[in-house]
Amino acid sequence: MDKYVIGLDYGSDSARAVVVNTRTGETLATSVCYYPRWKQGLYCNPARNQYRQHPQDYIDVLIHTVRESIAACPEGTAANVVGIAFDTTGSTPCFCDRTGTPLAMLPGFEENPNAMFVLWKDHTAVDEAARINELCKKWEIDYSQYEGGIYSSEWFWAKALHVLREDAVVRENAYSIVEHCEWMPALLTGVDDVHKLIRSRCAEGHKAMWHPSWDGLPSEKFLVALDPVLAGFRERLFKDTFTADKPVGRLTPEWAGKLGLSTDVVVAGGAFDCHFGAVGANISPRTFVRVIGTSTCDIMVSPYDEIGDKLIHGICGQVDGSVIPGMVGLEAGQSSFGDVYAWFKRLICEPAAALISKSESVSEEQKKALVAELEDKMIVELTKQAEKIAPEDSAVLATDWFNGRRTPDADQRVKATITGLTLGSTAPMVFRALVEATAYGSRAIVERFLNEGVKIEQVIGIGGIALKSPFVMQTLSDVLGMPIKVCRTDQACALGAAMFAATAAGIYPNVEEAQKAMNSGFAHEYQPIPANVERYNVLYKQYIDLARKTE
Amino acid sequence: MDKYVIGLDYGSDSARAVVVNTRTGETLATSVCYYPRWKQGLYCNPARNQYRQHPQDYIDVLIHTVRESIAACPEGTAANVVGIAFDTTGSTPCFCDRTGTPLAMLPGFEENPNAMFVLWKDHTAVDEAARINELCKKWEIDYSQYEGGIYSSEWFWAKALHVLREDAVVRENAYSIVEHCEWMPALLTGVDDVHKLIRSRCAEGHKAMWHPSWDGLPSEKFLVALDPVLAGFRERLFKDTFTADKPVGRLTPEWAGKLGLSTDVVVAGGAFDCHFGAVGANISPRTFVRVIGTSTCDIMVSPYDEIGDKLIHGICGQVDGSVIPGMVGLEAGQSSFGDVYAWFKRLICEPAAALISKSESVSEEQKKALVAELEDKMIVELTKQAEKIAPEDSAVLATDWFNGRRTPDADQRVKATITGLTLGSTAPMVFRALVEATAYGSRAIVERFLNEGVKIEQVIGIGGIALKSPFVMQTLSDVLGMPIKVCRTDQACALGAAMFAATAAGIYPNVEEAQKAMNSGFAHEYQPIPANVERYNVLYKQYIDLARKTE
Repeated sequence: MDKYVIGLDYGSDSARAVVVNTRTGETLATSVCYYPRWKQGLYCNPARNQYRQHPQDYIDVLIHTVRESIAACPEGTAANVVGIAFDTTGSTPCFCDRTGTPLAMLPGFEENPNAMFVLWKDHTAVDEAARINELCKKWEIDYSQYEGGIYSSEWFWAKALHVLREDAVVRENAYSIVEHCEWMPALLTGVDDVHKLIRSRCAEGHKAMWHPSWDGLPSEKFLVALDPVLAGFRERLFKDTFTADKPVGRLTPEWAGKLGLSTDVVVAGGAFDCHFGAVGANISPRTFVRVIGTSTCDIMVSPYDEIGDKLIHGICGQVDGSVIPGMVGLEAGQSSFGDVYAWFKRLICEPAAALISKSESVSEEQKKALVAELEDKMIVELTKQAEKIAPEDSAVLATDWFNGRRTPDADQRVKATITGLTLGSTAPMVFRALVEATAYGSRAIVERFLNEGVKIEQVIGIGGIALKSPFVMQTLSDVLGMPIKVCRTDQACALGAAMFAATAAGIYPNVEEAQKAMNSGFAHEYQPIPANVERYNVLYKQYIDLARKTE
Repeated sequence: MDKYVIGLDYGSDSARAVVVNTRTGETLATSVCYYPRWKQGLYCNPARNQYRQHPQDYIDVLIHTVRESIAACPEGTAANVVGIAFDTTGSTPCFCDRTGTPLAMLPGFEENPNAMFVLWKDHTAVDEAARINELCKKWEIDYSQYEGGIYSSEWFWAKALHVLREDAVVRENAYSIVEHCEWMPALLTGVDDVHKLIRSRCAEGHKAMWHPSWDGLPSEKFLVALDPVLAGFRERLFKDTFTADKPVGRLTPEWAGKLGLSTDVVVAGGAFDCHFGAVGANISPRTFVRVIGTSTCDIMVSPYDEIGDKLIHGICGQVDGSVIPGMVGLEAGQSSFGDVYAWFKRLICEPAAALISKSESVSEEQKKALVAELEDKMIVELTKQAEKIAPEDSAVLATDWFNGRRTPDADQRVKATITGLTLGSTAPMVFRALVEATAYGSRAIVERFLNEGVKIEQVIGIGGIALKSPFVMQTLSDVLGMPIKVCRTDQACALGAAMFAATAAGIYPNVEEAQKAMNSGFAHEYQPIPANVERYNVLYKQYIDLARKTE
């Protein structure tokens, strides 16, 4: 009998479960479910960049997607499920009690956003990140050195410090802190002591300044110097972290019942979505894997004998075993990519929709239909027009920092610029410039890796944009001057989770063997067009110049 | 009996005639007419920035507007019309034969754009302007010194040279060159020898490098050095120029018949629209008059004992008598103003209209109505939203060079920039930034005048934007930190023409007396809001910084 695994991928808005055959890699069923509280906008304040998620949302979608996907499989599949693994967004930490339970699950904290998971894109901790960076540069050890040398407001300590400073009740009741990708396995395996909770090498190495060379987390002295409210947390957190191929435990009877699976099911360690995604996309050394959606997450792996102790400056981190155990995982990314195109869509659609809604020429029903059509088709229409523009007819040039800059050299305060505008600059010309800008931002990351001695021999794309926008992908290939392969699977993260589940369950001796058997292959390969490569080599210099001037 | 005059104002797209009572300044009737050939887009090529107008268009609208406006006046008015005057756009030159007739009026040239008037905004002569500037800087005399020191592709010699280089047939048949504002009076007074044609001080002083200190036009040697195709033209052009208060002649019987007026009607000298507009707006020393429409034209007058021989660098020119005879007229301006808002409107409306036109949710008739509504109401809607934005909530910053920069320091190659963009930047925020950008561009001109020692004590606005957009005008007042008066008349140029007609006809001894009797008064005065002035003093520095970096 074939054995099956379940890969669970928790994204920003929804989670998905895939049931995968461990021998063939075939996906038998997929189920997607949106977070119900999050969908209503609860606990968030976009004007303050506050984005919080309720742990109950995570539980609700877990039960729904696992049951729904299993139900879609042939009979008998459930009995042959041998493993389950989770990837989540991150850094998405939450304060918890001594049992490892998120505070929001406790009476009195159910509606307190500070007792919930602080989603990766929450930017409330900008001041705290600045303070961490300041102290790191003064300290005897720069604890941010394996995280690119610049600590971000999106990360563990900045968020923890921000919440502790802001919320006295949480401050008094918080015992420790747990990342979303750690809590899911702990929950299903019945962990009731946070000191026994298996910590994620990926999460803590990339976001919490954990490193073996300084014996784990930053010193108590450093944390207290940051702010005395952090006193004691180091002791109550952890010393060790683990790669995600290691089993964390087996399903408790309660969870086996809830999910309709057996108590033999092995639960693997957790990691961040893009890291599992890179594995699902068949990452190997010298391969630059990009998860391209609203933003990008870029992943590489480097054997220890290649990268050694070399520090790669200005990226999001380098952590031994964060992607494939036994190799150093490297992370970078752009804080907005598809979001840039969505911004331009809104710029056009919002005022048009406002006027349509006031029109007396059409019925209320027609208004709704028209506004929906604008929303749905605007990017397709702009793409169609932008593809037709001869490069020399548009001198519009933009930078891509619509949501700050993640890499190279994180800076959340930088903003985007559009220049070269004339009365003849049309919307498709501006759209084209925005697509080029996101590609230039990608090239800046690639060039950083190359300049720091990390070799890149191929590029693999996964994620919504990679699969759905040939115009964007061709432009990216032209700007990078490299071919780009696009994975056949549209669920690379969940497929990667399935590979980790299969490895943890002992089906394969290591992740590489799971990749060989279970990868999806490639749907398409974009080839750079030589004339465009030449042109973009020139234009990229103009981008760098504009970026330098407007930083 | 009261005496009447007719002021004729030729704009870019249409001409208007006003019949004005010389004693009270009251406008009895107005008639507006679009140029029929121009309206069809004939002889133009926007992609090449080629804009040409057929002389027959000018004749057609002249007859129509004069007859229509007179017909709308009480009986007997026609018999008491004593004067007529013309203002036109400029520099709008045309090659003519020995009689002063535009080549396009001659058989075989009717359809040749190079035989027509080259409209002010035609930018085909960029290379020729560059060549003129280069030679001016090397020559023993800098002939551009009274035109701000930078010669523009929008002006007389650049355009003449461009057409001569491009068109062999025109080259062989051209005897001389005539400006639109000179041709109209010549036509109506029956001039049949170009050597007797009265030349406009305003047109030739501001655009053709005419100056008494070098005995009129640039030397033959200079012109031939520019290009041998110009050989002989200086001799066939003119030595003297005249202010517009001087009569050019009286209506020929033929034209008196065509217009339904008497042969006693005095025809005044011609000038550019903004110069007459400034007079119509009641300009006096230390008053900065702005004609604010698609672009701006900014006019000042300075008594000779105040400005003396001082050269004002980087403006469009300083010419004795070009506005009010006896004072030095100073011209500046922005090459796009309302056009910037129209650009943003198009950016939104064009893709929205493209999708609406493809919709299956509405009928063809509804599509037309909706697209028309978007066009008509977009700027009103954006204005309404932009007014509500608290200044601190938008960090969007733009420069205004969507059509190059006219002043200070003409440069048609510079382009516009929008910066400070984030995912949260909305269309109204960008619109607000564009309005602020056009105001910053205005301030740059004002500061140039002030820095060069030209005092400004009041600002007067005329033109479409001045009358129709309180938001733009208040922003302008706040950015300049000065009150702005807006004229009651919406036909300041035509009213100014009427004042010159009354002066030429001898009703008043000079233009100042005509202004006193015939001015329209002010409809509104904008006061700068102190808090905004303070804020814009800071933001203006950011604009200057952005402008410097992206020039």
